[in-house]
Amino acid sequence: MVFTDEVQASQQDSRFDLLAYLAERQTLVEAALDRSLPVIYPQKIYEAMRYSLLAGGKRLRPILCLATSELAGGTLEMAMPTACALEMIHTMSLIHDDLPAMDNDDYRRGKLTNHKVFGEDIAILAGDGLLAYAFEHVAVESKQVPADRLLRIVAILGRAVGAAGLVGGQVVDLESEGKTDVSLETLNFIHNHKTAALLEASVISGAILAGAAECDVQRLSRYAKNIGLAFQIVDDILDITATQEELGKTAGKDLQAQKATYPSIWGLEESRHQAQSLIKDAKAELAEFGAPARPLMAIADFITARSH
Amino acid sequence: MVFTDEVQASQQDSRFDLLAYLAERQTLVEAALDRSLPVIYPQKIYEAMRYSLLAGGKRLRPILCLATSELAGGTLEMAMPTACALEMIHTMSLIHDDLPAMDNDDYRRGKLTNHKVFGEDIAILAGDGLLAYAFEHVAVESKQVPADRLLRIVAILGRAVGAAGLVGGQVVDLESEGKTDVSLETLNFIHNHKTAALLEASVISGAILAGAAECDVQRLSRYAKNIGLAFQIVDDILDITATQEELGKTAGKDLQAQKATYPSIWGLEESRHQAQSLIKDAKAELAEFGAPARPLMAIADFITARSH
Repeated sequence: MVFTDEVQASQQDSRFDLLAYLAERQTLVEAALDRSLPVIYPQKIYEAMRYSLLAGGKRLRPILCLATSELAGGTLEMAMPTACALEMIHTMSLIHDDLPAMDNDDYRRGKLTNHKVFGEDIAILAGDGLLAYAFEHVAVESKQVPADRLLRIVAILGRAVGAAGLVGGQVVDLESEGKTDVSLETLNFIHNHKTAALLEASVISGAILAGAAECDVQRLSRYAKNIGLAFQIVDDILDITATQEELGKTAGKDLQAQKATYPSIWGLEESRHQAQSLIKDAKAELAEFGAPARPLMAIADFITARSH
Repeated sequence: MVFTDEVQASQQDSRFDLLAYLAERQTLVEAALDRSLPVIYPQKIYEAMRYSLLAGGKRLRPILCLATSELAGGTLEMAMPTACALEMIHTMSLIHDDLPAMDNDDYRRGKLTNHKVFGEDIAILAGDGLLAYAFEHVAVESKQVPADRLLRIVAILGRAVGAAGLVGGQVVDLESEGKTDVSLETLNFIHNHKTAALLEASVISGAILAGAAECDVQRLSRYAKNIGLAFQIVDDILDITATQEELGKTAGKDLQAQKATYPSIWGLEESRHQAQSLIKDAKAELAEFGAPARPLMAIADFITARSH
């Protein structure tokens, strides 16, 4: 019986169509994001917020949140406001990172960056507006979730984006720019905070909304930290190997900026190996969940396989 | 008996020492703010956040929050994390407003602005960090308050600072700069959003934390909207009549920037009259609360009487 179950799970694994799954979820998320932010007076700020929020992207964070809500026995509906909030926070961090005073990027996802279209002042405010709205959206729009769980989500989102998360990672990243002697420890700090923290928040928030047991939340947290770091290593690799067209942003920028990256410390081959090893560890955390964890398994594989 | 009570209340009114009350509350708030944000790695961002958060100021928003918590039968302890969050949000809005891409101010509260000391990139991130931390702080540090009330606080704070509040007001303010034909309606929109929204959030949040009845929350909301607008009118008046030393920031800046202000629409005398009328309406809302509303009564009077 156990054997049959395993064979079935394995057969289902091989049949699991990740791209169709991602496309379906992406459509749901796009529609929810579109509905979340109607344009009212003063129109300019809502248009600026929507310009970046609806500029495409993989919607990986919302999709992870929805996936773990379902994994833990919850619904898409109860997780959707948090899923949207995660994308609002992610978008805010991109808008502010792209500013002239920060990374000074003109393009993002193949489109002009927010400040190139709306001006620096509006771009700063659009980021602030998205960050504030993320918390309001979770608090006001979440249905059928007990208030104490939502409060925990607010704490997790706040921590993931603040000085203990994204902001802290960005500060160390800015400090490290142009330095040729950045240690692996510092590089790990940057990416654990700039990338992995919000991915972890995405993964555990869905499970928490659905009332998952604490040991399962911890398991998912370890899964997320592993794929988060793998994601960044692959990003660094792609910055060297992919073309600008594939990336939708300036390629080779890290090299030009003399930025410390995993390939600059480990070389390309070792970087690929480390990413694969992290993905293997991530997937091992999912074993207990069985077949319902197939989307998370496939997403882990997808991270190392992606070309942009 | 009623008569005696009224006489007593009136005697207490005349004896109420607002400056001692404000000084005592300010000390409590300063200590709580100081404790709320220890410096850890990466030190620079925490130092930047603390530089502006602990740069003085009247602490009016936290004090209002603490006052209405007590008015509604709550404690200082249950309101303190929200009181600190209000000051974090206020500070964030000042840091971002002062940026070169916005109002381009070099001084604030008599000290160099955040970006003049830490650079633009860190100033943007310090604002983001304070905003995110405000929500985390309410969610994690609030004690003895039911989760559903805290969730309502999160929604109120998010709305007060986002595009429906502060950010929206700042956008219209930026759009109106240099225009000589700004309507009273637009000026009211700017200040109802830039100033009154967060003051209202401060006033109602304390009462909500303490479990006030909805009619009392509404009464306090009207009180707050009135003092919020009066506060701004007085700010505009002081920009013309006060010295730089009294203000701790560049005086006469509105005139130089050809900014629409209440005095520029109404003249000084009518502006003073309107502010007094708003304060009278604000105080009328407090009548039902009796003697326990004395601090709020005195704060309303203080707003028109202040010289900086």
